[in-house]
Amino acid sequence: MDAYAVVMAGGRGERLWPLSTPEHPKPFLRLFNGKSLLEATLDRLAGLFPEERTLLLLREDLKPAVEALEPKARVVYEPSARDTAGALVLALAHVAHEAPQARLVLLPADHYVNDTQLFQNDLTAALEAADPPHVVTLGIPPTRPETGYGYIRLGARENGWHRAEAFVEKPTYATALHYLQSRQYLWNAGIFAFAVPTMEALLEAHLPEHYRAYRALRAAIGTDAYPEVLAEHWATLPKTSIDYGIMEKAPHVRVIPARFGWDDVGTWRALERTLPLDEYDNAVAGTGRHVGVETRGCVIYAQDGLVATLGVSGLIVAQLGKTVLVADKERAHEVRELVRRLENGQAS
Amino acid sequence: MDAYAVVMAGGRGERLWPLSTPEHPKPFLRLFNGKSLLEATLDRLAGLFPEERTLLLLREDLKPAVEALEPKARVVYEPSARDTAGALVLALAHVAHEAPQARLVLLPADHYVNDTQLFQNDLTAALEAADPPHVVTLGIPPTRPETGYGYIRLGARENGWHRAEAFVEKPTYATALHYLQSRQYLWNAGIFAFAVPTMEALLEAHLPEHYRAYRALRAAIGTDAYPEVLAEHWATLPKTSIDYGIMEKAPHVRVIPARFGWDDVGTWRALERTLPLDEYDNAVAGTGRHVGVETRGCVIYAQDGLVATLGVSGLIVAQLGKTVLVADKERAHEVRELVRRLENGQAS
Repeated sequence: MDAYAVVMAGGRGERLWPLSTPEHPKPFLRLFNGKSLLEATLDRLAGLFPEERTLLLLREDLKPAVEALEPKARVVYEPSARDTAGALVLALAHVAHEAPQARLVLLPADHYVNDTQLFQNDLTAALEAADPPHVVTLGIPPTRPETGYGYIRLGARENGWHRAEAFVEKPTYATALHYLQSRQYLWNAGIFAFAVPTMEALLEAHLPEHYRAYRALRAAIGTDAYPEVLAEHWATLPKTSIDYGIMEKAPHVRVIPARFGWDDVGTWRALERTLPLDEYDNAVAGTGRHVGVETRGCVIYAQDGLVATLGVSGLIVAQLGKTVLVADKERAHEVRELVRRLENGQAS
Repeated sequence: MDAYAVVMAGGRGERLWPLSTPEHPKPFLRLFNGKSLLEATLDRLAGLFPEERTLLLLREDLKPAVEALEPKARVVYEPSARDTAGALVLALAHVAHEAPQARLVLLPADHYVNDTQLFQNDLTAALEAADPPHVVTLGIPPTRPETGYGYIRLGARENGWHRAEAFVEKPTYATALHYLQSRQYLWNAGIFAFAVPTMEALLEAHLPEHYRAYRALRAAIGTDAYPEVLAEHWATLPKTSIDYGIMEKAPHVRVIPARFGWDDVGTWRALERTLPLDEYDNAVAGTGRHVGVETRGCVIYAQDGLVATLGVSGLIVAQLGKTVLVADKERAHEVRELVRRLENGQAS
């Protein structure tokens, strides 16, 4: 199957501050084994997709960062951030220009996956199930009452997949507990497989402005007009996500429960879910040094310095140069609020 | 009164790591108003003692650090650390060589005092009360059940002082509570006033080795033999404190309750006792920046970087370059244990 992979590297990862910054956003973070999340994603895809059918979408201002990585992919630059539906339009135009009937899998650049073989098996199954008019998504069986993700409600089982009954927004804690216990809900990991004509029809039906941009871009690719057409349509394209703009409205969606271990690496707590813990349940990462006395259940990231902890538990401590974050682990998702304060120049 | 001041700058301040290091020990720390503790001490003495009667005692290896300060004092170098009784012997020899009947006040270089005028008044009173054979000490009325200090038991009141009934070692918490509530105990701040002959007699009676060193040094001062005599006696001088070696045994001790606010600046918690607190009871110091969200009752020291805190309370966070300490405030005195681990190269 001559399918394409489209990797979306638009994540900012504000909650991973101070490691993530606008110039060094989440896909470029080297949290695991010294390899950036983006490189790890491309490595996982390499066995299934040749470089010429692997598209990497990211904002133009990240050109220096991505060129330094020399990614094994065709890089397509977005003039500015237009959320995932924007990235989809641009990627679809490039794929359709070359292969109007091709199937593609769309996925984020900055997630953690624990098993490449299982991941590739599931992607292959998703592409195979993506016969028009179906969109196939990989759903992650939840392992905790997570309130930070969207969920997919499982419908009837058919062959190797289920019908997706609904895409639901981020739940309250009580609802998340119910979802977890019911076993009828999977996490929406933002991984979608479909054929070009399937998505063309969905864009036309649900996102008319995006569809117009798509048609104009597809016609302009390979011509001198491309930069101008891109700039023109991009300027007015609304910011919309694939989930909200398309998936919640798409009538024919299949979902395959993923077999691989997955994490969105959304907050510092991701480290304790993905790294081996020490005997006191601390997750310690980074190339710096940590020395702890009676330190339990902490997430410690020492980028290039020394973090010493004494008599503390349940904290996130992240050191990068002369900057340090100390946060209650339970409030890892609020790090974004700190970043806002820093931007506004507020003190404590 | 042509009295002398002897400032002992032998404190290491290990519990103030990472700010304190062997090369940059406690007297050199700039915790308050950008001035080192040592400079603040010398400034407080300047109104009472001219530079030529102010002796500053510290280890020879700190010569570069002290010369950079250009202290307004006569610096006397100790070849190595010999505790406070060693510093006393060396200082007494220098004073006695010039003024065999002089009175002197001996005090640590690295304490915090909140009111220079009251401090000078109390020192003057101590020197006046120091007629032989009396040693006079300034005791600090306790404000908490501190287990980290020695105490002085108050005896009968005489004029402007009390007889000191006993010097007692660091108490347990229960005992410290009793001392505090009884109002019969003062903190031993290590500030002593006496005349040269008084201390000569006490050394002869209680520390014979120190007395021999004292006599040899006094005879050698001003001669070419001084460096050799100093090296010879210093090598074998036992490490003893003034408190243990002399004060606990001295028969004629007077104690004056200090009127100034005092802190030994022994741990990071000293900052919350000496600095104005913000509206959330945080003590924030250093020339770096702090940004906090829902941060309460913390001691934050940002030397030259950025400390960001989120949803934490009762912590010490101290940043210096790429090194950071995060500790439970209640365990501030255990920072020394961390330093030991670092020296031994142990990880968490």
